[in-house]
Amino acid sequence: MMKLNSFGQWVLMGRRWLNPFPRACMFSSAVKQWEGGVSMVQGASRGIGLEFVRQLLEKSDKGHVLATCRNPKGATGLLELKNKFADRLDIHQLDLTIDRTIEEAAKSVKDKYGRLNLLINASGILSIPNVLQPETTLNKLQRDSLLLTYEVNAVGPILVVKHMWPLLKVGGGAGTDRDHAIVANISARVGSIGDNGLGGWHSYRASKAGLNQLTKTVSVEFARKKDPIVCILLHPGTVDTDLSRPFQSNVPEGKLFTKEFSVQKLLSIIMNAKRSDNGKFFAWDGQEIQW
Amino acid sequence: MMKLNSFGQWVLMGRRWLNPFPRACMFSSAVKQWEGGVSMVQGASRGIGLEFVRQLLEKSDKGHVLATCRNPKGATGLLELKNKFADRLDIHQLDLTIDRTIEEAAKSVKDKYGRLNLLINASGILSIPNVLQPETTLNKLQRDSLLLTYEVNAVGPILVVKHMWPLLKVGGGAGTDRDHAIVANISARVGSIGDNGLGGWHSYRASKAGLNQLTKTVSVEFARKKDPIVCILLHPGTVDTDLSRPFQSNVPEGKLFTKEFSVQKLLSIIMNAKRSDNGKFFAWDGQEIQW
Ligand SMILES: NC(=O)c1ccc[n+]([C@@H]2O[C@H](COP(=O)([O-])OP(=O)(O)OC[C@H]3O[C@@H](n4cnc5c(N)ncnc54)[C@H](OP(=O)(O)O)[C@@H]3O)[C@@H](O)[C@H]2O)c1
Ligand SMILES: NC(=O)c1ccc[n+]([C@@H]2O[C@H](COP(=O)([O-])OP(=O)(O)OC[C@H]3O[C@@H](n4cnc5c(N)ncnc54)[C@H](OP(=O)(O)O)[C@@H]3O)[C@@H](O)[C@H]2O)c1
Repeated sequence: MMKLNSFGQWVLMGRRWLNPFPRACMFSSAVKQWEGGVSMVQGASRGIGLEFVRQLLEKSDKGHVLATCRNPKGATGLLELKNKFADRLDIHQLDLTIDRTIEEAAKSVKDKYGRLNLLINASGILSIPNVLQPETTLNKLQRDSLLLTYEVNAVGPILVVKHMWPLLKVGGGAGTDRDHAIVANISARVGSIGDNGLGGWHSYRASKAGLNQLTKTVSVEFARKKDPIVCILLHPGTVDTDLSRPFQSNVPEGKLFTKEFSVQKLLSIIMNAKRSDNGKFFAWDGQEIQW
Repeated sequence: MMKLNSFGQWVLMGRRWLNPFPRACMFSSAVKQWEGGVSMVQGASRGIGLEFVRQLLEKSDKGHVLATCRNPKGATGLLELKNKFADRLDIHQLDLTIDRTIEEAAKSVKDKYGRLNLLINASGILSIPNVLQPETTLNKLQRDSLLLTYEVNAVGPILVVKHMWPLLKVGGGAGTDRDHAIVANISARVGSIGDNGLGGWHSYRASKAGLNQLTKTVSVEFARKKDPIVCILLHPGTVDTDLSRPFQSNVPEGKLFTKEFSVQKLLSIIMNAKRSDNGKFFAWDGQEIQW
């Protein structure tokens, strides 16, 4: 049922997502409460995601961070940060393979903050002991590996964007220095088809190419609808985390970044992203990467 | 167990795939038998795949064609061709979602021909009544649709390439005018990330970007191993088939191709593909498409 509200806007009643009164507008205390913005880091238990949470909290004395992970009780890095930043950090359970947990995370953000200004999808899989090995040859391709990698690296993150979309629209840049919200999906240079000169890692490469295409597709809709959201893809460089550990012997000297360095670079791209960056794929150094 | 054969090549005994004596070399009658080459069209029940089978049979009086489909008994178009080309056409069951059927198709080709010179993956899904609808907005994304489309459009075709690889290596260009075998995976321009200016069709677009990346990855290995195989991606144009039918009202006048026209163009690209085309993505008119 449509109803005209007191601002003369059409409102679909009974669908709270479309509430045109974000808390921040209703209560001036709320405006203050979300000063610095509300950020969500998905895949925050360790690695690059955890480092994003840390830097978002430490580099500013304002702003709230929602960190999601599969197993909050075991996320020791996040729990340490929670001790230090009790009021500014929330930890929620979210498993990309389970729709319900994505929906529940969206509901939590909605109930507590009513909006979102930044969403970083930082999760990703390349290998899982006894389950998933990156392929070295076509002979090793397996249906299950291809599907699992695609589900976690491409499908899950884009479903998170789907469910956070209404909150990002409400949030835009309010409370931050930007005039738009940001979605940053962490991809990988090896997802670039044009840059693929080495082969191998079929499941991972294809999942990231899929993530790139999904993110680009979403960015087109955001732009067409004039949503205050800029959507970008980021390559963090080769970073010293659990994900890269089994493969670090191939990394040339000086090319293995610390999490601190990579995330600092990525946050600078995120915080400075312009409307014209919507739908683009950037490396840690700000260079655009071919598809 | 490794053993030195009479040509001085190392042979892994007990693994018939690695048999260095393709039938064509052992029996001169076999060489004659496969004159014109052995081609496989996967996804041949209707549409573009069926038309490939027809033109491969009708445009030359030599060469054998293996057509695969999910339901051979219901594939009336193929059965009609079988009546006309009984000796040159084999029909096999292959469902991309079932590994066993892919393995069995490979075994059939191996047992009957011992080699393959051309593999066309022509299958593809965009919509399935009551099951799958191409998405018009991010709100419509569903895990199952994303996964099903990826499995049929990207995972299945590349697993077919995996299982046919040993036969393509043996086949190369023998019996044809080429000096290499060809793998042609039918992709779609909307799979191009760089060309994506309209958005929508998320599942389909991402699946084709995934197929493009998988095909590129495989092409790199073929080149590195100096296999006599050239691997290309093809966009058929917008073609009047069941797949495009629900969406044809948006097609500008004169831009909807007949199957006959599109396949004639694609076959000319396939038959003329050079080593340097390996890993490339071509439209029906021979123009390269950006990733
Ligand atoms: N490290 C590199 O060199 C490098 C290079 C290029 C791109 N990247 C990309 O950067 C991102 C971060 O990677 P990283 O190096 O930080 O990896 P990491 O240390 O292995 O961390 C991966 C994260 O993904 C989470 N995750 C895995 N499966 C999940 C699921 N089903 N649902 C929710 N979360 C899930 C993990 O959670 P659990 O703790 O619960 O497993 C963990 O928090 C990934 O997208 C990766 O592809 C990394
Ligand atoms: N038509 C166009 O305008 C257009 C444009 C760009 C790209 N393409 C691409 O061209 C290719 C051919 O499309 P088309 O237009 O000929 O479509 P179509 O007429 O709908 O035919 C699709 C074919 O795919 C087969 N298929 C579906 N699911 C399968 C599975 N699980 N296992 C094996 N085969 C399966 C179908 O077999 P069943 O009969 O058993 O269902 C049918 O033979 C596709 O890759 C498509 O994406 C088409």
